[in-house]
This record gives sequence, C-alpha cells and structure tokens, in this order.
Amino acid sequence: VTIRPDPGRERRKGAPEVVFGETKETAQVIAMAQALLAGSGRAIISRMRSETKEALLDVFRDYTIRLREAARAMVISRPDFVRPDTGGHVGIITAGTSDVPVAEEAALVAEEMGCRVTCIYDVGVAGLHRLVGPLRDLLSNDVDAIVVAAGMDGALPSVVAGLVPVPVIGLPTSVGYGLGGKGMAALLSMLQTCAPGLAVVNIDNGIGAGVTAALIANRVAQARKHPLR
Amino acid sequence: VTIRPDPGRERRKGAPEVVFGETKETAQVIAMAQALLAGSGRAIISRMRSETKEALLDVFRDYTIRLREAARAMVISRPDFVRPDTGGHVGIITAGTSDVPVAEEAALVAEEMGCRVTCIYDVGVAGLHRLVGPLRDLLSNDVDAIVVAAGMDGALPSVVAGLVPVPVIGLPTSVGYGLGGKGMAALLSMLQTCAPGLAVVNIDNGIGAGVTAALIANRVAQARKHPLR
Amino acid sequence: VTIRPDPGRERRKGAPEVVFGETKETAQVIAMAQALLAGSGRAIISRMRSETKEALLDVFRDYTIRLREAARAMVISRPDFVRPDTGGHVGIITAGTSDVPVAEEAALVAEEMGCRVTCIYDVGVAGLHRLVGPLRDLLSNDVDAIVVAAGMDGALPSVVAGLVPVPVIGLPTSVGYGLGGKGMAALLSMLQTCAPGLAVVNIDNGIGAGVTAALIANRVAQARKHPLR
Amino acid sequence: VTIRPDPGRERRKGAPEVVFGETKETAQVIAMAQALLAGSGRAIISRMRSETKEALLDVFRDYTIRLREAARAMVISRPDFVRPDTGGHVGIITAGTSDVPVAEEAALVAEEMGCRVTCIYDVGVAGLHRLVGPLRDLLSNDVDAIVVAAGMDGALPSVVAGLVPVPVIGLPTSVGYGLGGKGMAALLSMLQTCAPGLAVVNIDNGIGAGVTAALIANRVAQARKHPLR
Amino acid sequence: VTIRPDPGRERRKGAPEVVFGETKETAQVIAMAQALLAGSGRAIISRMRSETKEALLDVFRDYTIRLREAARAMVISRPDFVRPDTGGHVGIITAGTSDVPVAEEAALVAEEMGCRVTCIYDVGVAGLHRLVGPLRDLLSNDVDAIVVAAGMDGALPSVVAGLVPVPVIGLPTSVGYGLGGKGMAALLSMLQTCAPGLAVVNIDNGIGAGVTAALIANRVAQARKHPLR
Amino acid sequence: VTIRPDPGRERRKGAPEVVFGETKETAQVIAMAQALLAGSGRAIISRMRSETKEALLDVFRDYTIRLREAARAMVISRPDFVRPDTGGHVGIITAGTSDVPVAEEAALVAEEMGCRVTCIYDVGVAGLHRLVGPLRDLLSNDVDAIVVAAGMDGALPSVVAGLVPVPVIGLPTSVGYGLGGKGMAALLSMLQTCAPGLAVVNIDNGIGAGVTAALIANRVAQARKHPLR
Amino acid sequence: VTIRPDPGRERRKGAPEVVFGETKETAQVIAMAQALLAGSGRAIISRMRSETKEALLDVFRDYTIRLREAARAMVISRPDFVRPDTGGHVGIITAGTSDVPVAEEAALVAEEMGCRVTCIYDVGVAGLHRLVGPLRDLLSNDVDAIVVAAGMDGALPSVVAGLVPVPVIGLPTSVGYGLGGKGMAALLSMLQTCAPGLAVVNIDNGIGAGVTAALIANRVAQARKHPLR
Amino acid sequence: VTIRPDPGRERRKGAPEVVFGETKETAQVIAMAQALLAGSGRAIISRMRSETKEALLDVFRDYTIRLREAARAMVISRPDFVRPDTGGHVGIITAGTSDVPVAEEAALVAEEMGCRVTCIYDVGVAGLHRLVGPLRDLLSNDVDAIVVAAGMDGALPSVVAGLVPVPVIGLPTSVGYGLGGKGMAALLSMLQTCAPGLAVVNIDNGIGAGVTAALIANRVAQARKHPLR
Ligand SMILES: Nc1ncnc2c1ncn2[C@@H]1O[C@H](COP(=O)(O)O)[C@@H](O)[C@H]1O
Ligand SMILES: Nc1ncnc2c1ncn2[C@@H]1O[C@H](COP(=O)(O)O)[C@@H](O)[C@H]1O
Ligand SMILES: Nc1ncnc2c1ncn2[C@@H]1O[C@H](COP(=O)(O)O)[C@@H](O)[C@H]1O
Ligand SMILES: Nc1ncnc2c1ncn2[C@@H]1O[C@H](COP(=O)(O)O)[C@@H](O)[C@H]1O
Ligand SMILES: [Mg+2]
Ligand SMILES: [Mg+2]
Ligand SMILES: [Mg+2]
Ligand SMILES: [Mg+2]
Ligand SMILES: [Mg+2]
Ligand SMILES: [Mg+2]
Ligand SMILES: [Mg+2]
Ligand SMILES: [Mg+2]
Repeated sequence: VTIRPDPGRERRKGAPEVVFGETKETAQVIAMAQALLAGSGRAIISRMRSETKEALLDVFRDYTIRLREAARAMVISRPDFVRPDTGGHVGIITAGTSDVPVAEEAALVAEEMGCRVTCIYDVGVAGLHRLVGPLRDLLSNDVDAIVVAAGMDGALPSVVAGLVPVPVIGLPTSVGYGLGGKGMAALLSMLQTCAPGLAVVNIDNGIGAGVTAALIANRVAQARKHPLR
Repeated sequence: VTIRPDPGRERRKGAPEVVFGETKETAQVIAMAQALLAGSGRAIISRMRSETKEALLDVFRDYTIRLREAARAMVISRPDFVRPDTGGHVGIITAGTSDVPVAEEAALVAEEMGCRVTCIYDVGVAGLHRLVGPLRDLLSNDVDAIVVAAGMDGALPSVVAGLVPVPVIGLPTSVGYGLGGKGMAALLSMLQTCAPGLAVVNIDNGIGAGVTAALIANRVAQARKHPLR
Repeated sequence: VTIRPDPGRERRKGAPEVVFGETKETAQVIAMAQALLAGSGRAIISRMRSETKEALLDVFRDYTIRLREAARAMVISRPDFVRPDTGGHVGIITAGTSDVPVAEEAALVAEEMGCRVTCIYDVGVAGLHRLVGPLRDLLSNDVDAIVVAAGMDGALPSVVAGLVPVPVIGLPTSVGYGLGGKGMAALLSMLQTCAPGLAVVNIDNGIGAGVTAALIANRVAQARKHPLR
Repeated sequence: VTIRPDPGRERRKGAPEVVFGETKETAQVIAMAQALLAGSGRAIISRMRSETKEALLDVFRDYTIRLREAARAMVISRPDFVRPDTGGHVGIITAGTSDVPVAEEAALVAEEMGCRVTCIYDVGVAGLHRLVGPLRDLLSNDVDAIVVAAGMDGALPSVVAGLVPVPVIGLPTSVGYGLGGKGMAALLSMLQTCAPGLAVVNIDNGIGAGVTAALIANRVAQARKHPLR
Repeated sequence: VTIRPDPGRERRKGAPEVVFGETKETAQVIAMAQALLAGSGRAIISRMRSETKEALLDVFRDYTIRLREAARAMVISRPDFVRPDTGGHVGIITAGTSDVPVAEEAALVAEEMGCRVTCIYDVGVAGLHRLVGPLRDLLSNDVDAIVVAAGMDGALPSVVAGLVPVPVIGLPTSVGYGLGGKGMAALLSMLQTCAPGLAVVNIDNGIGAGVTAALIANRVAQARKHPLR
Repeated sequence: VTIRPDPGRERRKGAPEVVFGETKETAQVIAMAQALLAGSGRAIISRMRSETKEALLDVFRDYTIRLREAARAMVISRPDFVRPDTGGHVGIITAGTSDVPVAEEAALVAEEMGCRVTCIYDVGVAGLHRLVGPLRDLLSNDVDAIVVAAGMDGALPSVVAGLVPVPVIGLPTSVGYGLGGKGMAALLSMLQTCAPGLAVVNIDNGIGAGVTAALIANRVAQARKHPLR
Repeated sequence: VTIRPDPGRERRKGAPEVVFGETKETAQVIAMAQALLAGSGRAIISRMRSETKEALLDVFRDYTIRLREAARAMVISRPDFVRPDTGGHVGIITAGTSDVPVAEEAALVAEEMGCRVTCIYDVGVAGLHRLVGPLRDLLSNDVDAIVVAAGMDGALPSVVAGLVPVPVIGLPTSVGYGLGGKGMAALLSMLQTCAPGLAVVNIDNGIGAGVTAALIANRVAQARKHPLR
Repeated sequence: VTIRPDPGRERRKGAPEVVFGETKETAQVIAMAQALLAGSGRAIISRMRSETKEALLDVFRDYTIRLREAARAMVISRPDFVRPDTGGHVGIITAGTSDVPVAEEAALVAEEMGCRVTCIYDVGVAGLHRLVGPLRDLLSNDVDAIVVAAGMDGALPSVVAGLVPVPVIGLPTSVGYGLGGKGMAALLSMLQTCAPGLAVVNIDNGIGAGVTAALIANRVAQARKHPLR
C-alpha cells in the first residue's frame, strides 16, 4: 500500500501530523515515521502497541526519542531537529486519574507545537475546593487556553468554563460503564453545558484537544510578539 | 371504559395515587377524581390541560382546592379531609428557572404525604458560590432527603451529592436542545455520577422524585417519634 | 501519576471511597489502598482482576482482609480499625442468580457503612409467590431501605416497590442479550415504573445502590437514637 | 393514484385487510373501502380521523356499520355479509386505561375473524391480586390465546406469561414519557422477558396482535371441529 | 450461591426450564442440571461452553444424553424419563446457514415439549422460488405454527407470513455487520412487517420462539384429541 | 440574506439544482426560482407548502409550469426552454400507496434530466405474484436503472434486486410507526440486504434516488449513441 | 418564581448572559431583561417568539434596541451603555442559507463581546472553489477565530479546518431529514473530523460558538495591546 | 448442515456469489467453495481467517488461485475458467490508508465481474488539491462508476460526487473511535450528502459497492457494444 505523506500540512496548518498507531501494523508505522522524518525532521506516533514501540526504539536508535508512556506516544526527531518555542501557554486539567492517558496525548502535541504546558491531574469533582487553588495559579500565569478532560458525568469542564475568562476545550474520556458509559454521558453533558465558551472534541481525542488549545495559545503568543500588527 | 381505583394502594404504600392529566380527557379525569375522593377523601391531579382545570374547579366547587399553577397540578379534598403532618423534611433544589415546574410536582406530592418542604430554586451551576449558603441552612434544619432538579448538563445533582451526607434524588428535566437535549444528557450524567449516594428518577418525573424523598423523610420522622423501636 | 486521595470525603459524606479495580493496574490499586489506609484505616476495592487480588493479599498480609469473592471485592483494614455499627437495616433482593455479583457489591458497601444487611437472592419473577414470604419477614424486621437487582426485563423492582412502604432502589444488571440486553431494558423499565417511590442507579452500579440504601438506613437509625432532635 | 386491492389475501391468509386511516385522506379511505366491499363484502378501517369517520358514515349509510369509538375504528359491511363464527376464544388484558384504545383494535379484528373475545382492562401491576381472579376465569373458559397490552414498564405481559399455559402476545403501547417512553421500555422489556412463550408485536400494533391471536384461536377451533384430521 | 429451582413451572406453563450456559460456570450448570433432574427427570442446557459440555458428558455419563451440536445444546434425562408426544407439528425455516444454530435451539425445545418438528434451512430470499415447494409440503402436513429465522435484512418472515394461514413466529438472528447489524435490522423489519399475523421474539432467542410455537401446536393438538370440549 | 446560485453545477454534474421548499419562506423560494431561471431557464421546486405553490403560480404565470401534485413539486421553465431527451430509461416501483409521493419526486427529477420514466405503484410485498409481470415488462423494455421505494419493513428493494440484472436504488420512505418506524427499519433493512447490487439513499430522498438513477441511465444512453468511444 | 440574575458572571467570564426566549413566557423574559439591564446596562435575548418581540419593543421603547431578525434575537441597552470594542476579529461562514439564523446568533454575541465580525454565507460544499477567495481575504485581515456553520453532511468545517492556521469552531445546524437529520450527521461528522484543530459546540448553539470564538479573539486582541505581558 | 447453492443466481443477476468467511468454519468454507466451483467454475471468498486461507491454499492447490491479501480475499478458479472482460471501467478512491482493505474487496469483485478497475488510494481530505489530478485522469479514461471509501467524517464521497458527472457509490468504512465512530458518522454523512447522485452501501460492505459499480459499468459497456438496441 502506497503512503502519501502530506508535507505541506504542517506549514499550512501549524499543526504536525500524528500517526495513529492503534490499528496500524508495525511496518506501516515505521514507513510513515520515515516519511515524516524525511519531510519535517520529526515523527509523532500515538497509541502505539507495545511491539510497535519496541521496534521503533530499535529502528530509530540513532534519533532523539521522547517517550510519553501513559499516552503510549513517542516523538522521534532527527538529531538536528529544533522544536519550536512559541511562548504559548496551555493548561490541562483532569477530573480523575483514568483521564490521564488521554490528557497526556493533548499535552504531548501541545508541547510539540511549541507551547508551555501545565498539567493538573485528578482534581475530582466531589471536592471542588481542591480545584480553586491550582486554577488561580494557572490564570495568574497567563494561561491562554485550558483543556479539561473528564469521563463519567463529565461535569468538570462546565464547572471550569463557568469560572475562567479563558477558552476551554472539553475533552470527554471513555471512562464509565452502563448507560452513558464509555464517555457518552461526558460528551453529551459537555455539549449541553450551561457555561458559555466551552467547545468540545470527540471522546478520547486528546490530539484534537491539544492541537486546538495550542493553535489558540500560539496565536495569542504571536500577538504578544507582534503587537498592533 | 371502566375505571378500577386501587383504594388499598395508599395504605399499602404510604403514597397517594396521582392522576396524570396530560393524556386524559376531562371526563376521565373527573371520574377518576370522584373515585379517589370517595376512597380516600383526596384526589391529586398533575399536568392538567387548562380546559380540564376549569372543569375541575367548576365540578368540585364545594371541595377544598389547592392549585399549584407552575406544575399544572391540583389537589381536591373533601372539606373534612385532614392532610397528615409527619414531621419529615424534604429539600428541593433546581439548577434553573426552567426546572421549576417539575420541581413543583415533587414539592406538591411530598407535602401531600405530610412533609415539610423547603424549595431553593435557580441556584445555577456557573455560580456555585450561590449554592453554599442555602445548602448549609437546609442541613442545619435537619433535612431528611434532597431532590435536585436539573436539565441541560445535569451537573448540579452530582455537585450536591458530593457535598451533603443526606440521600439525594436526581431529577432530570427535559430542558435543552440538540444532542443530549430534552433531558437526555442530564439523565445520563446523573446515572454516571462520580458522587456516591445519588439515585435518579426518569426525566420530568417530579411525582416519582417527590414520593421517593417523602418516603425517606417519613421513615426518618417515624423513627424520631418511635426511638429504638 | 500522582494520586490525590480526598480524606475529607468520608467524613463529609458518610460514605467511604471505593477503588474501582477493573481498569486499574495492580500498582495503582496498591498505591491507592495505601493512601486510603493511611487516611481512614480502611480501603475498599471492587472489581479486582485476579492478579490484583493475589498481589493485594500478599502486600497487605499483616492487615485484616475481608474478601467477597462473588463481587470480586476486598476490604483491607488496619488491625485496629473498628467498623461502625449504626443499627440501620438494608434489604437486598435479586431476581436471578446472575444478578448476585452486583448485589454483593451493594451488600458489602452497606455493611462497611455500618448497616445490617439481609440478602434474598433468586426470587424469580415467574413465581412471585416465592417473594411474598421473605418480603414479609424483611418488613417485620424493620428494614429501612431495599435494593432490588434485576436484569433482562427488570420487572422485579417495580413489583416490590408496588408492595412495600419502604424506599426501594432499583439496581439494573447487565444480564440479557439482543435488543434491550446488557441491562438496557431493565434500566428503562425501572425508569418507566408504574410504582411510586422507586429510584434507580446505573446498570451494575452495586456500589451506588448500596451507598444510597445505607445513607437512608443510617439516617433512620440515627433518628431512632436521637428522637425529636 | 391507482389502488390495487389484493382480493386473494383474505382467502390465502385467513385475515382481512385493515385500512390504516391515520395518514390517509378521506377520499383515499372511501375508495379503499369501496374496493374492499366489492371484493369481500366488508371493509375495516382503523385510526380514522374524525372528518373521515363522518364522511364514511354518510357515504356508507346503506351499509351495516360497526363503530368502535375508543379504537377510532369502523367496520362497514354489505347488508348480506355474514361474519364468521369460528369458535375460537381470545383474551385481551390491559395494564392501564391508557392501553385501552390499542387493545380495542386487537379486539375488533379478532372478532371480525370470527373469535369470541373477552376483555379485562386496567388490572394494574402494583395490585397483582386483582389479576388472579379474572385470569382463572379466562383459563376455565378455554381461552386459546391472550393479548396483553401495557405501556410504561411493560411488566404485565411477562407476569401473565409466567402464569398461564396459553400462548401470550405482548402488545406494547406508546404510554410513558422520558427515557424509554412512548412504548420503548415496554417493548424492550417484553423482548427481554424472563417468561417462556411470550411473543410480541410492535408498539401500538393492536391489529397485528389481534390477527396473531385470532389465527391461533381459529386454528385451535378448527381442530376442535376436525379431530384427528 | 443458593439455587432455587422452580419445580412447579413446567406443570404451570407446559414449558420446561432451559439453563442458559453461556455465562455460567461449569459447577453452576452441573448443580442446576442436578436440581432439574431431581425435579422433573430432565435437564436442558443451551449455549454450553465446550469445557462445560465435556464436564456434563462425564458427570452424567449414566444418563441419557441428547446432543444438538449446532445449538451447543444438550438434553440430559433420567433413563426412565419418557418424553411426551403431543401430536403438535412445528415448522422451522431459516433464510441462511448462519441462522441454523439459533433455529436448532427452537427445534430442540419444541421437540422436548412433545412436538414433531420439520426443519427447512437456507431457503434464501433472493431465490424465493426455492421456498414455495417446501412451504406447500409443510402446509399439507398440517403444520400448526412456523418459526422463521433470519438475520441481515430479516425479510423472510414477512414473506412467509404473507403466504400462509398459520401463525408465524419471527426469530431474528445476530447475523450482519454495519448499521442495523447483529440482528437489529432483522428485528426492526419484522416488527414493521406489512404481513398480518407475524409476532416476534428477541434476537437469537431460539428458545423463546420454540416454546411459543410449541405452546400453539400443543394447544391445537390437544383440541384435535378433545373435540368440542 | 444573499443567495448564491451555482450556475456551473448543472453543467459540471449533469443534474439540476432542486429547491427544497419545505423549510423556506415563499419569498426565498421565489428569489431562488428567479436566479435559477436566469441561469439555466428552468427551476425545480420540491415539497412546496401550499401558500408557496399559489404564489409561484401567480408570479410565474407567464412561464411554462409543470405541477406534480403528489410530490408537492413544480417545474417552472422559460417558454423557450427545451427539456433534454436522452434516451435513458428509469423504472420506479413502490411497495404501497403511501410511498407514492416520494416516488413521484424521483420520477420528476429523472424526467427533467431527460429520461423516460416508467412507474409501477403499490405492488405490495405480501402478493409478490403481482410484481412479476410488470417487472418482466420493464426488463424487456431495456430499463437502465430501477428505483424501489418502500416504508415499514422495506423488504421490496431486496426482493427486486435479487431478481433483476440492473442496478437498483433503494428508497426508504418514512412510513410506519413504533420501533423502526418513520423509515428507519426500511433503511436499515436495505443497508443489510442479502441481494447484491442494491445501493440506497436516505429516507424520503426521492430527489437523490431519481438523480442517481438518471445519471446511470443517461450514461448508458450516451454509450448507446457513441459506441466503442 | 424568583429570578436570580448572576451579575458577577460577565465580569468573571468576559461573556454576557443571553436569555433563551423560546421556552419562556413574555413576562419572564421582560423580568429577566429588566434584571440584566439593572445589572450591566444591557440585555440580550435570543430565539424570541414574535409576541415576545412585540412586547419587548413596547416595554423597552425608551432603550436602545438592536434587532437581528434572522436570529430572532434582540439587544436592549440603556442609552448610556457603551459596547466594548476589543479589536478581536471573528469570521463566520455558513455552508447554506438554512444555516444563517444560527450563524447570526454567533455573530450577534461576538459583536456584543466587542469583536469585529466578518460573515461569509452560503459558500456551498459542492463548489469549493467559491470558498477559496473569501477565506484568503479573511486570513489576510488577521481573523483570530472562525466559526463554520453547516447542517446535513456537516463537511464544510472539516474542509475549512484543513486549510487555515486559525482555530475553527464547528457549529452544526439542525438542517436535514431522514437518518442523521436535524444536525445529527453534521455534529458526528465534525466530531470525527480528519482535520486537526476543530472543536465543536452542540447543534444550533450559535451562542456557544460565538462566545467561544470571541473569547479567543479577545484574548489575542488583548495580547496585541499588551505585548510580552 | 446442508448447503443449498443457488447456481442460477449469477446468470440471473450478473453478479457472482461471494462467501463471507469471517464467521464460517474452515470446513464450511471449503464445502461452499466446492459447490461454487462445480456450478460456475469459480469461488470467491472474502474475509478469510488465516487458518482458512492456509487450508484453502492446500485443498485447492490444483486450481488457479488469486489472492488479495489486504482484503483477506481469494478467488479460486478451475484451470479452464475464463474470467469475462466486459469493457466496463470502475474507479475506486479511498480517503485514507485504513480504508484500503474494504476498497480492495470492491476492486476484487468488480474485476471478477469483468471490469477494468482503477484504484486511487489515500487522497486525504485536508489536501483536496491532491485529488484533482487523478480524478481528471479517471474521467478522461471514461470511467463508468466511481466507488469512494471513507471512514471518520466520511466527507470525501460528497466532495467527489459534487465534482463528477458519473454515478458515485459511497462506501463508509469502520474507521474512527468515539461518538460516530466505527463508520457511523461516515455513513450518516453520506446519507445526508449535499451532492446529488450519491448512493451508499452499508459500513465496510466493499462487496456491495463493487457489485453495484460493476453492474453500472457493465450495462454501459454493453450499450457501447450494442448501440441503439
Ligand atoms: N490519537 C489520535 N487521536 C485523534 N486523531 C489522531 C490521533 N493520532 C493521529 N490522529 C490524526 O488522525 C489522522 C489520520 O491518521 P492516520 O490514519 O495515521 O493517517 C492524522 O492526520 C492525525 O492528525
Ligand atoms: N406527572 C406524573 N409523573 C409521573 N408519574 C405520574 C404522574 N402523574 C401520575 N403519575 C403516576 O402514574 C400512575 C398512572 O397514572 P394514571 O394513568 O393516571 O392512572 C399513577 O399511579 C401515578 O402514581
Ligand atoms: N392500525 C394498524 N396497525 C398495524 N397495521 C395495520 C393497521 N391498519 C392496517 N394495517 C396493516 O397495514 C397494511 C398497510 O395498510 P394500508 O397502507 O392501508 O394499505 C395493511 O395491509 C394492514 O394489514
Ligand atoms: N440560543 C441559545 N443557545 C444556547 N445557549 C443559550 C442560548 N440562549 C441562552 N443561552 C445560555 O443558556 C443559559 C440559560 O439560559 P436561561 O434559561 O435563559 O437562563 C444562559 O446562561 C445562556 O448563556
Ligand atoms: Mg479520584
Ligand atoms: Mg438562569
Ligand atoms: Mg432462576
Ligand atoms: Mg390506573
Ligand atoms: Mg446462502
Ligand atoms: Mg396496500
Ligand atoms: Mg445553496
Ligand atoms: Mg493519512
């Protein structure tokens, strides 16, 4: 099967390709990584199966490797590749610990897009008092966009969006069983939010949430550098 | 069509019959009300259409009438009927103003079952600070069970259930449009709650929520009167 | 990944944290158990995978262990931990034998919250005559709340709620195949109940049903001890 | 638009055509009735809108008319038409009064197919004791098939099918609101029945239930007349 | 876990208990089989896992065993058990070969209820001409009820019900992928049938279809023996 | 609101724009018709509300009008407009009379695209014998594509596709109530067809079915004229 | 019913309250408008019914009124109210004309939040060439965020997000009938987008899309003014 | 289990039987292949499990084998079998690489029906410019029908159908996770297409898409050979 990498995409969009590893065979992932490395000097792979991970570590042993275990993600870069540093600042919050793998996907891609990323994990919903402090810190550090990941009842993004004057990206996770389980209630609840200014991505789409937040943050950062353009 | 009232039900269950008026013809509602008045001295009608309301006011003009406009509900009682006073205390909270009609159904039936009912309406979710004071008051007045009505994202019942040591009944309301609208997201979100001790009834089922809360409150009230039974 | 136990929760809510073992790695469960033991002297784990169970038995061999095999649940307590005895009484009924594992979750958590628990399993629906005797016994022993677990058509909770003057918690179980299978028909049927005073939790949520019933029972028990408070 | 009546159908199937009036214009219904009268001497119309009813009464004033108001159904027959009398016996039971219109459709078509029909309406579920007597009567009168109509939780058909040694047709009705409303929970619950020997038709399909029951009853009746054929 | 067999059921209903083996452990199945053998002299097990089958063959090696491989079903009977022979006749038709396992469940239980069973498998839909001959044979052999099993588009039961003057039980099977797959389109299509006199059971519920058809057939057979009762 | 007609579309696609009248205000429809008349000399409007129809008849009284009442559709053309005649031949079949309005939409647009259209309405499913003759006629007249419209169980398109060596377009119609009603079962059933070579359009999308069939027929017709191109 | 306006919300969130008029009685809307005018000097009402519109025009005749007919929206402001001008720039694109009312809601609220708004309506999908020019203009005018509204197949937001380096908010509209109609396919398609950096709001939630886009734009605008903060 | 091959089908329909291997046992597949080889000289098997593939290669080692690995499909033919060459031309396009296996099914069956097949894989949606060239080539080579396979948002078929004057068959693939995943959004989006002349088959039904396209192409090819028939 021929692979047609789209080298113009990153330039056009300001967002890198990410290889979705879960349903690909190891050989396919390696070929795609090679194509991306040839094109942009960097390849990002998400949801690697463990045998794929081992193979990549072996094949690309002369490259710089950044592993993000929880997200089953890896960044391979040519030794001379310099990751951008835009000055954008993205916050990533999770309701529980089960939401962390998906949140880590968002963190990884936002970092690769040049943002500073601050993660606050497992703030709970039952104990909202635990949320207030860290949120205040984020805001006083000029966070530009916040991703909030939650499964089950998906209430946290609405609560955060009701408190902060910053765009919030709701990231539902496939946590929960029974009716509304696997992220369904979380997604619906975010779509039905009473809070203004909450936009959402699909269940478990950490990459989408991270890219959106980083696009926002990078645009703000650019404006900081180029005032009154 | 013959009507078979079940006079033993109130005695057996401790909860009165409630006539669901929305899909019944006026003549049917009148016949049912007469049967219930003959049996227990009281008839409760919910979701009356306005022509039914007028007809009932006319037909039962010699009876004691209690109207609850927002819920489109009416209680008709024989002049000699004495409503019980159990000493149970039920709290009823709504997220928004659109949830009030359904909450009023719950309030009405809990009162008819002999409970004291305290209503706190439109506390919002975005401004949770507005919730804290009234909730503290409820608890310090020994509330026995709390009904929390919410539509759209349905987040409020989970928030309340995470804060209070009292059984909470989640009452989703058919508020909201789009995916998860008409109470669907609210119901799913309550079923997926992260908070322990939240049980739910169906969308817009104010009667069911009120009866459940009153059954709890009455049982507690009875225990207060008959210690160490 | 950092874990943020919420030690205040049990005090605030009167209900203990329960670790959901199914999707957690053994190391995560052990860390959470240690945090909970440090906080409250007790850790409850539900839906353990078998390797996790073995590891816990090994790691916490100096602690008091209570195993509930059918529910794949375990309670680990410090030798000096004294479980409360509130005097509350919870009844737990199942329609079939397949509903037992979920019912056992409810029983376990209600016991850990200090309640006496009476279980009546596999009463069937086809042979309702088999239900009458045990139900009468429950009522004459002052049961404060009843959990009724059922899969497939989910008819039993409605039948019970139509007979007893006690709050009933419907607990749908993921039993059944085809349309409405995996507990869907059971849940919908309970939400659509004709019986007043039936509230429900999500499919297979034994913990939620048990906590709700125990909150009710404990509140009644407290009232028995503190009359006319 | 040309209409193609299928005159052979009744002979082939032993069941008459029934015109579904709800979505048809009056002129269409009249034309269909005329075609059926020409073919078999009888036309059955269900779910007539009221203006259609008036028009039919007028147009066919020289025919024998049988009106079934609750079902919004009408049977028009040539004066010389002789309805068959097969000796089959069909029982029709409803859970509530709201189920009656659909049950009446079943009754009507079973009668037109030559059966004796016994109706028992509004037996409730909460008070199953009210069911036992009438059911015993039915059985001792050699009922050949029983249709049980129920909306909301749809529990009654399962209960009946668990008690009687006769084929039971479950007939869900579009009663109930919220999740599982409009007959959905009732249908799913019947499909998930724990009772053996319960088959179902679609929500509100009284005609289908009546035809099935009458086919069974007529076959039994025929066997009574032609033993050891 | 205690098992409560319901010995009165077969007498009450005229249909035997069938153990659903798929989700039960071998030890549970053996215990249930022993209870049923003690009660009625026969135990029917459906959907056995293969290790359960081996164990049953071993444990009950002194009993009479009837295996139905395709249905993964087994009948164990005490050597002295005499299966009834009612004279009822049930026809079972499948659209394809994938529907056969479920059809075999229906055949097995109808036979155990004393019926003669005629199976016609894989008649297709595209080639309806292949259906006509066998159907004519069935009818001329006085079949009392016909089960028609179909997956995918589920069209066959409607076609058959449009042709024969005998009650037809539609049995959707979980065949097909994509939207409407796993029997969903088949079930919906049967519920929406244009043919009168088609009743359905749930997806893959061969037992339910077989019991219903046998109840009908046995009732007819009994009438043949007891004319003008 | 500015309207941007896409004049190049008809040339590019070989299919005309069709205005969907149901949700548009009369003024909007008139403006669109004027734009289309200016562009291509013809405007096609489907699903007109009756007040819109009257207004169009008035405003365009100097134009050639073709009304298709059943489809609530109208074709307005400049007096000098010459409709193409391609030589393509499209067959359109309906299962019942309720499917006719949608079938007429398909017929209209195929005719406007230059095809000869043969309609066969209300062939039923129960009496498939009624289908055979007309189908044979169609085939012997070199029909190039067949649209089959059906609601309820949607079985007819599969039956036709199993018999003819011509591409078949399944057109589900929103006929039927209860589960799978409003065309859902019909659509799913067509998607799950056992017959090869059946493609479908959405429920009630007569325009889509007609355009697809006409595109096929016109391509065949063109090949007839330009052999061995 | 008491109304509890949340005056702090606009300050806290940077987004104004918007009254949802569709399900409110005129008296309720007037009361809410008065409360908001008292608090912030401005009241925004969306989805007014026409009688409400007339009443508002009358009651608030001494105020400044801004009507947005297509969106059925109105802004009432105290004569001395000065709308902010932030310098943010929001683009709003629709696929068709039916998407305009919802797009206008987004435009209105973004303007009220101080943004410059550029609208490009009815760009179609079939003629993507019509999209390219206007999109290039938007980008060269430093647009900060783009809302793309689309119903039916919802393909346009993905296409736009694949082309521009700016955050895109997908706004599905309830346009379309049949399966996936009323915006469902549009929403799902946006959630499943292949394009990175597309976040969505619920079907028809123009307010939510506009607030999110304006929050982004205002943050960028602020950075332009306060470089290197 | 008896197998009833339908030898007349290929002659009647112009489309060969294809054995669906996924759910069949190896022995069943071999028996079916033998029956088809005996009948028509060729057997096509799709979705073979790998053990089945090995067995077929062994059993039919004296036959001509054509393997299509990506589709897990195989064609076995008698050495003397001559595949038809009709002159029809089918184009097959995929959005991504994950859609290739299903596209290959379509290609295989179209080739076996005698068509020339041109495949264009992984054209993407984000970079539509990559689509234009190959599409122009297809059209200038007189392609008769085009299959477009896409998962996730399913936007590509609508885009193609908006550009070409040839019938397009949309083939949704089960690619994508979260809400609308597994091909659901893709299918709905195609059903809701804004482009005229797009018909669809079910998710992953490559065979159905290929047969439909080949039926169209073969009909056109036949007309090319037999002009003005
Ligand atoms: N974990 C992920 N979640 C969501 N999107 C992803 C993920 N990984 C990759 N993608 C996106 O999915 C698109 C298709 O991936 P691929 O199939 O690898 O070509 C890529 O363009 C990525 O932007
Ligand atoms: N508004 C309501 N919501 C839910 N249940 C109700 C309502 N009104 C009445 N009911 C219950 O519905 C049952 C059936 O009502 P009915 O059809 O009036 O006999 C009664 O037993 C009531 O307990
Ligand atoms: N109320 C009804 N419910 C279900 N099926 C019906 C009903 N009325 C008529 N039918 C059946 O629906 C088929 C189509 O009806 P029609 O559209 O009137 O030709 C007829 O053959 C009837 O057998
Ligand atoms: N057309 C609309 N769509 C979505 N949300 C809205 C709309 N109009 C108002 N809202 C929001 O819905 C919330 C509740 O509205 P209300 O019921 O008017 O208090 C408000 O806080 C608004 O932010
Ligand atoms: Mg936690
Ligand atoms: Mg409010
Ligand atoms: Mg049992
Ligand atoms: Mg009643
Ligand atoms: Mg076959
Ligand atoms: Mg007809
Ligand atoms: Mg347009
Ligand atoms: Mg790709």
